[in-house]
Amino acid sequence: MLTVGVIGCGYWGPNLIRNFINLKDARVKICSDISEKRLAHMKHLYPSLLTTTDYRQVVGDADVDAIIIATPVSTHFQIALESLEAGKHVFCEKPLTDSVEDGVRLIDLADDRGLVLMVGHTFVYTAAVNKIKDLINGGELGEIYYLSTSRVNLGLFQEDINVVWDLAPHDVSIMNYILGSRPEAVSAVGHSYIQPGIEDVAFVTLRYPGSILANLHVSWLNPNKIRSTTVVGSRKMLVYDDISSLEKIRIYDKGVDVVPHYDTFGEFQLSYRYGDIHIPKLDDAEPLKLECQHFLDCVGGVSSRSSGRHGLEVLLVLEAIDRSMRDGGSRITIDYPATLG
Amino acid sequence: MLTVGVIGCGYWGPNLIRNFINLKDARVKICSDISEKRLAHMKHLYPSLLTTTDYRQVVGDADVDAIIIATPVSTHFQIALESLEAGKHVFCEKPLTDSVEDGVRLIDLADDRGLVLMVGHTFVYTAAVNKIKDLINGGELGEIYYLSTSRVNLGLFQEDINVVWDLAPHDVSIMNYILGSRPEAVSAVGHSYIQPGIEDVAFVTLRYPGSILANLHVSWLNPNKIRSTTVVGSRKMLVYDDISSLEKIRIYDKGVDVVPHYDTFGEFQLSYRYGDIHIPKLDDAEPLKLECQHFLDCVGGVSSRSSGRHGLEVLLVLEAIDRSMRDGGSRITIDYPATLG
Amino acid sequence: MLTVGVIGCGYWGPNLIRNFINLKDARVKICSDISEKRLAHMKHLYPSLLTTTDYRQVVGDADVDAIIIATPVSTHFQIALESLEAGKHVFCEKPLTDSVEDGVRLIDLADDRGLVLMVGHTFVYTAAVNKIKDLINGGELGEIYYLSTSRVNLGLFQEDINVVWDLAPHDVSIMNYILGSRPEAVSAVGHSYIQPGIEDVAFVTLRYPGSILANLHVSWLNPNKIRSTTVVGSRKMLVYDDISSLEKIRIYDKGVDVVPHYDTFGEFQLSYRYGDIHIPKLDDAEPLKLECQHFLDCVGGVSSRSSGRHGLEVLLVLEAIDRSMRDGGSRITIDYPATLG
Amino acid sequence: MLTVGVIGCGYWGPNLIRNFINLKDARVKICSDISEKRLAHMKHLYPSLLTTTDYRQVVGDADVDAIIIATPVSTHFQIALESLEAGKHVFCEKPLTDSVEDGVRLIDLADDRGLVLMVGHTFVYTAAVNKIKDLINGGELGEIYYLSTSRVNLGLFQEDINVVWDLAPHDVSIMNYILGSRPEAVSAVGHSYIQPGIEDVAFVTLRYPGSILANLHVSWLNPNKIRSTTVVGSRKMLVYDDISSLEKIRIYDKGVDVVPHYDTFGEFQLSYRYGDIHIPKLDDAEPLKLECQHFLDCVGGVSSRSSGRHGLEVLLVLEAIDRSMRDGGSRITIDYPATLG
Repeated sequence: MLTVGVIGCGYWGPNLIRNFINLKDARVKICSDISEKRLAHMKHLYPSLLTTTDYRQVVGDADVDAIIIATPVSTHFQIALESLEAGKHVFCEKPLTDSVEDGVRLIDLADDRGLVLMVGHTFVYTAAVNKIKDLINGGELGEIYYLSTSRVNLGLFQEDINVVWDLAPHDVSIMNYILGSRPEAVSAVGHSYIQPGIEDVAFVTLRYPGSILANLHVSWLNPNKIRSTTVVGSRKMLVYDDISSLEKIRIYDKGVDVVPHYDTFGEFQLSYRYGDIHIPKLDDAEPLKLECQHFLDCVGGVSSRSSGRHGLEVLLVLEAIDRSMRDGGSRITIDYPATLG
Repeated sequence: MLTVGVIGCGYWGPNLIRNFINLKDARVKICSDISEKRLAHMKHLYPSLLTTTDYRQVVGDADVDAIIIATPVSTHFQIALESLEAGKHVFCEKPLTDSVEDGVRLIDLADDRGLVLMVGHTFVYTAAVNKIKDLINGGELGEIYYLSTSRVNLGLFQEDINVVWDLAPHDVSIMNYILGSRPEAVSAVGHSYIQPGIEDVAFVTLRYPGSILANLHVSWLNPNKIRSTTVVGSRKMLVYDDISSLEKIRIYDKGVDVVPHYDTFGEFQLSYRYGDIHIPKLDDAEPLKLECQHFLDCVGGVSSRSSGRHGLEVLLVLEAIDRSMRDGGSRITIDYPATLG
Repeated sequence: MLTVGVIGCGYWGPNLIRNFINLKDARVKICSDISEKRLAHMKHLYPSLLTTTDYRQVVGDADVDAIIIATPVSTHFQIALESLEAGKHVFCEKPLTDSVEDGVRLIDLADDRGLVLMVGHTFVYTAAVNKIKDLINGGELGEIYYLSTSRVNLGLFQEDINVVWDLAPHDVSIMNYILGSRPEAVSAVGHSYIQPGIEDVAFVTLRYPGSILANLHVSWLNPNKIRSTTVVGSRKMLVYDDISSLEKIRIYDKGVDVVPHYDTFGEFQLSYRYGDIHIPKLDDAEPLKLECQHFLDCVGGVSSRSSGRHGLEVLLVLEAIDRSMRDGGSRITIDYPATLG
Repeated sequence: MLTVGVIGCGYWGPNLIRNFINLKDARVKICSDISEKRLAHMKHLYPSLLTTTDYRQVVGDADVDAIIIATPVSTHFQIALESLEAGKHVFCEKPLTDSVEDGVRLIDLADDRGLVLMVGHTFVYTAAVNKIKDLINGGELGEIYYLSTSRVNLGLFQEDINVVWDLAPHDVSIMNYILGSRPEAVSAVGHSYIQPGIEDVAFVTLRYPGSILANLHVSWLNPNKIRSTTVVGSRKMLVYDDISSLEKIRIYDKGVDVVPHYDTFGEFQLSYRYGDIHIPKLDDAEPLKLECQHFLDCVGGVSSRSSGRHGLEVLLVLEAIDRSMRDGGSRITIDYPATLG
């Protein structure tokens, strides 16, 4: 039985509390928020839950084994640092921190203390994303050529972060996870049409090892809500549409074969394959539930799918995108710190 | 009555012949092709048509007022040059030439002689593209923010030109036409997955005057055939889906209003509009027929929607895209020659 | 302030309690269920709510002005009868009763006592259905020709009622409401593929006054979930797709005009109209909330959109459908009792 | 080499001529039409073709082995009769005749003379319909429960036949073919909204052996063009959408299993299966080409997929539908004549 304390009961915290309460190997003892009103609401929902406006009471609670952090990003580092120093495992909402330096420090500290540090990149716990990873790993798609994603809709505009920091973390986390690698370089173009200085539209290209390109379109200014990822491989292609409830993944048995030519004057030979389309049935378990259970498993020794390192790699990509956008779309090479191996 | 001669009876030439024959103010007297077989086929379809394997017979025919060129691009310049020098109006398939220098020379020559030089950018004659142009010009979309297009499918791979030269001319021609302007700069990323040296996937960003961005995705490696253009304006947004036969344009009465704030501490105010969707009925006349009629009108004095200048501007953009792709995605500024004004 | 008591806290009751609690002019004092477990759950959600396993405590509570009945249909009559006799207004879930005779008795009793008797046909409170009613009433569709609906999916099979009683009440209620009339006759074909004696597929035709046909397809055995209604009028046509979240109603400016012909040998003349498609933005308020508020309004004197009479008319149609199905699809004329006017 | 003569060069005849000309084992020697203009058009297309306004010249041509009939239905019987009596094989457009009696006479005559009599029910030559037949025959769908089809659009209204005779022949032909059986009884409801006496909307139920229901919706008054057939089996379900160019058939691995129960008080047990969706790649050969080749094969001894008997069975169903519609939807049992076995 793992005893957890939750810091931050705003938008996402209550979902985490609900999921941890429903796990049979966890209990939520205490939560904190700076708003008395939010705490009253939590108390109403879960009368036995202790509440406090001082997060240090959660961090300092001797019964608590793990701290769940769902506060604004600017506070992540300080709370996570104190939690790790107090010997607590940490589950921190994304993004891990707002600076690479702080992220490295947390990862090193967790390593030193032998504690779990996990980041809430929920998509890597969805059935769809894991299905895609399995298809890639199993070789069913062949060699991966390129990916193309759209994550666009009308609003909601954020005031403190641009559309890249709002929407692209999902795509970068998903792509790093399914490809099992991380981008070497980035170029990006964006613009602020509504709020000066806060990009609301961006087109981003990531270059993964092995000549894999990934193009991302993120926008708060689009008439339709689109959540689509196309993965093109040498053997098959797939489209992942996260808006669809029943047909999230379509696998196309389509491709182009380059026919080797032996004669000296043979023209270039291509052969097209047009085949069946397959729409696999996916498990519909709530990803957040799986993510919370996974955190318990990590405390038990399993290595995490969305570790601090995973979260830090995403941060590095976001920072590179921002730099490229502000430098007119120039190509930015990413230097991964030694901590990331 | 305009008498035309057609040079090139391969893939596209017969469509042009059919359309000119059906116009009541034109007649097709003679056509040429290097293949006797193609000429026999044309003779079979239109017994009264004269045929020749020597295009100079077409150019030199005293009855012929206008030359229609539907040959490979490398031959465009020479044939168009001779035609203009012989005092004939010229309708040339896209792209106009394979070098900017040659294009400029043809435009200048046509101007000197007072002859029509028109390029076959057929999309500017479609009902859908003209509807979009009218909506923009009439202010219905408000200020244009950005455009995003996908023109992707599986194959058909070309051996001599890359996917940009194959597919992007349509998008560039359409965007220049509906915006009434031309890109100032370009950046592009592409890759050759199948044929070494011939890009089969590219992501392109064009920067139009007034901070308008246009992003193009062109690909020969995509499981679905997509022909989609999104136009986002400050008042409304629209999606143009050229695959749909009956619902090509959807106009969304959606947007974001920036509320001016007068007090010193007011937070940033945005107001969202979510409104009706409107799908206008479009005329379904064949665009190629309208284009051929338009050529007659231009000979009669009307100025052309797809003039030599329009075609040359497209060429300049394609060349800049190629340069950016080969330079790792760097931003390339386009210098338009003086001929283009 | 109306004080209500709720009888039945199974599947639907809690939704009613939540909505009545949230209305500012109502309060929920007491609820009953035969299951202690359900009552404990309600108490957990709303600590101030009184609970009882004896519905007569609810009916007999002197503070209670209105009784909400969300129990199995076989119990509706007895509970509603006692409630009306105790002078309480009644809101009863659909179907009103399981026999026409009982339904008539309740309606007459409510009339005698001057009490409200309302049935929970929620669809008539949706924005989509009311938009359609407005379009018909305003003449925008012209003369109504026919309606065609599909309400199909895989399961969930009921053990006590067939697919007609499960799904068709929605369609009949909607059609009676938007047409402002009721079917004169019915024919229906159905079959029991899975559970002997309980039809799981049915095709039903209703004949409304003025030669309006309505065809219903209801099924528990269909691969796709479909909730679609097509309304064809002489001026326009519309499709109502209740599965779509943002584009529920599409209005087609399409039709056929019969051109009058004056000469003796003129052939029959038809003229087709193909026009724009319009997708109106609909209000997205929760229909159940509107329905609960409407009940308060009815107690205040407004006449109900889903009165006991409306519910009884639906019952009569369902009974006629059952009879036709069991009689091989023969045409059954419906005799509406005097109570219904 | 089979020499054919074609009678009727209106809407469909030229397609048949084109296809027979392109078959390597057939030649078209002569064609007839009552319109000189149509004949001139055919001569223009195929200069070596003989033409005549007198169909008896075609029937009487000694070189001609087979007669292709593409004239109005009222003339089918007389032309087919003379052709068979002249010892020619006959390929007749659907419907075979306008009376059952005449149809029987033609079939008997062809049998007596050992000649082929085939009807142009083209759908049974499509890849999609044959895929469905294979899935049913191979048991992949399990026991067939029911079928539901929509064949609706706006117009084109016919002046001489109603919507049932215009559109339902396709559905009846397809269903008889894929089920390998024929309806025992029919009930139908229809109405004439535009042209008095000519139904433009109809809802039809066919009862096939083994409790298989088939419901057809045919209409000339629908805003959308729909060509859809749902087949529900005990193991799998499928949807055939003939409008889709690339995804005509979707096979759903969905169903309901009835779990046998052994105890005395066990409640009814159902178990749902929700599985993958599969969209098979279909061959895209032109069905009409396959049909024409099939006619040659039949002359060579193969038995026909769309024989005179198949065509006559369709006629019997259409007549029964008309009778039911005019009798208020009553159930009409079909008596198949002895000729049909």
